[in-house]
Amino acid sequence: MENRKQIRLGVIGTGNMGSEHCRMILEGKCPEVRLRAAADLRPERREWARKLLPEDTAVFADGRELIASGLCDAVLIATPHFQHEPLAVAALEAGLHVLCEKPAAVQADRAERMIRAAEKAGKTLTFMFNQRTDCVYRAMKNLLAGGEMGAVKRMNWIITDWYRTQRYYDSGSWRATWAGEGGGVLLNQCPHQLDLLIWLCGMPCAVTARCGEGKWHHIEVEDDVTACLEFPNGATGVFVASTGDLPGTNRLEIDCERGKIVCEDRQVKVWRLGMNEREICFGSDDPWYRAETEAALLETDGENPQHAGVINAFAAHLLRGEPTVAEAEDGLRALELSNAIHLSGWTGERVEIPVSREAFDRELDKRIAKSVPRTRGDITYDTDHSRGGSRNN
Amino acid sequence: MENRKQIRLGVIGTGNMGSEHCRMILEGKCPEVRLRAAADLRPERREWARKLLPEDTAVFADGRELIASGLCDAVLIATPHFQHEPLAVAALEAGLHVLCEKPAAVQADRAERMIRAAEKAGKTLTFMFNQRTDCVYRAMKNLLAGGEMGAVKRMNWIITDWYRTQRYYDSGSWRATWAGEGGGVLLNQCPHQLDLLIWLCGMPCAVTARCGEGKWHHIEVEDDVTACLEFPNGATGVFVASTGDLPGTNRLEIDCERGKIVCEDRQVKVWRLGMNEREICFGSDDPWYRAETEAALLETDGENPQHAGVINAFAAHLLRGEPTVAEAEDGLRALELSNAIHLSGWTGERVEIPVSREAFDRELDKRIAKSVPRTRGDITYDTDHSRGGSRNN
Repeated sequence: MENRKQIRLGVIGTGNMGSEHCRMILEGKCPEVRLRAAADLRPERREWARKLLPEDTAVFADGRELIASGLCDAVLIATPHFQHEPLAVAALEAGLHVLCEKPAAVQADRAERMIRAAEKAGKTLTFMFNQRTDCVYRAMKNLLAGGEMGAVKRMNWIITDWYRTQRYYDSGSWRATWAGEGGGVLLNQCPHQLDLLIWLCGMPCAVTARCGEGKWHHIEVEDDVTACLEFPNGATGVFVASTGDLPGTNRLEIDCERGKIVCEDRQVKVWRLGMNEREICFGSDDPWYRAETEAALLETDGENPQHAGVINAFAAHLLRGEPTVAEAEDGLRALELSNAIHLSGWTGERVEIPVSREAFDRELDKRIAKSVPRTRGDITYDTDHSRGGSRNN
Repeated sequence: MENRKQIRLGVIGTGNMGSEHCRMILEGKCPEVRLRAAADLRPERREWARKLLPEDTAVFADGRELIASGLCDAVLIATPHFQHEPLAVAALEAGLHVLCEKPAAVQADRAERMIRAAEKAGKTLTFMFNQRTDCVYRAMKNLLAGGEMGAVKRMNWIITDWYRTQRYYDSGSWRATWAGEGGGVLLNQCPHQLDLLIWLCGMPCAVTARCGEGKWHHIEVEDDVTACLEFPNGATGVFVASTGDLPGTNRLEIDCERGKIVCEDRQVKVWRLGMNEREICFGSDDPWYRAETEAALLETDGENPQHAGVINAFAAHLLRGEPTVAEAEDGLRALELSNAIHLSGWTGERVEIPVSREAFDRELDKRIAKSVPRTRGDITYDTDHSRGGSRNN
């Protein structure tokens, strides 16, 4: 591919997200990508593709036909979650690179298979963790990775600002069913935050969770999650997510040895102690020591390219070896955490990570066996990325 | 007492809190209270009392002598926690009214005995829940009790702004030991917030908690708590407390059917929906409905009389039948929740409320049996209430 100036991309799945990705590429936001093909199992979505995509974009019913066509160097997979793994593996085995929508898969063992397939093929696999491109999170990552704040002691993320009405869940027969999506807010809305949480604070080693299934909506799956996290260094965490809170909250607090970071309303406030709290604790004569520190706004570069940023980094990686936004393993890690929260919610017990994949698959299969498709037909909304990151899917 | 203009008060325990209460009364902040007696087991504190209190204030070694002296109509108990119950019961049985420092006791069954003793004697028992007098919490209580916000759906309190150094714990041989205090941050710092939580949101029916014992300090008891709460109406809650976070946070979020309330930095922000989210969920055609609501600052009366407010209300109650700041049962409720969090932390399991008092007492007794007094001597700090509510004890 070294001599090409563009990668030839096929988009598999042209529903809410896939169609928006196509539109974005056609609008010229991804100059190193040429949209070469699109695939969708649904006739009405192929109709849409034939009407709205350029004439030289091939349209397929089956993603496997697109993969086999030889028209593409890489595919962007934006199908329902359960199809991520078989399509990604097929594409990788056919020698194509893969950019896959989140979540990586529904079950961690499937995500693992995708990674093994990429390794075997020597091709690139990465995931649409577009929130990592947000200047706010990049600035937090730089601050934490730089070591100035010391180790993380506690984190608390309330992420409830992706309200959904019943109408949202009624828009697809597969939506919010165990058989169709394999989960609710954890798999549909949370993968970004679970990825960012791990990216910023490290991977938890255990979780104790409560999940409310169909708590706020007439759905099978969870729409309300409260998870207590434990990290290997002894740090603790709380992760709260819901699609039933109005108006919701998106507030991430990270307490460190040398201060505190709070991200809310797209602002990052930092309190710096100047020394390690552990030294203060055992060195100070003041029983009620108070830190004389004021919140400072963390500077960012203001850039927030989101999906285009991920696609452009993917292209730059394939063309010039530049880094992708996330590694293949990052998709697995976020899913491991998601699976652990699900399993703890189902069993009511503390679950250690890595989670028992057999136990998770067994519990999920029980739910899939009893799952009932939603009665309403499928609707593809005119999704607009500009309405904010928390609106994806 | 109807003909008196002042109640005659005895203060039992003149350590950090008791001495400050005496000082406040002598400064004239409680005009309907006359300080008549003080008691402390420690000779150096009696020395302090004889030196600094007016000559007509009787000084006793044992609280029971003070109770039997006939000099007082009421006592304010500010001893270590385990002595609250025997002293309160003795006072009530002797026909005195009781204002007792928080926590009501260490074990819920002891708090229950105090309430039964008050009922039997027909005397008043109340607790030092001085944070209830804060205009900020009173305004929230009024808003929630008024019904305008609808039912509570979720609450999240991060209360970690009461940092303590090791020196604090080294200031008393009884401090932060199972035998001396019966608990850590839950019993010493949290009783106010547990009371406010119940006052504002109602009593939880179950809790799943993780408590870190000696996590940040060289102490036996918990200095780090993460508790997930369940309420009878299905609402969920998170309560996080620690004495090891610097700078800490005090942020209470309450999500309701008709909006959201956030209390932080002594400001209460309210987002009002104007209608019930439950109706929006099932009535709106917009899958991604967004509430067009801006945060409004909740008005308060600016008054925050704290300890003086509780003492003055106690006196007004005894003299004129006005309401106390809290009822006797409120002390029991806060302790029930505290006991449940402890028990869940100890067993690692979900605990329903009311908690099994036998199970709690048994687990606590195990820890008391192995408890070791701290080696440092007792120090009484020149506690100054004006340094903020989170500094009490």
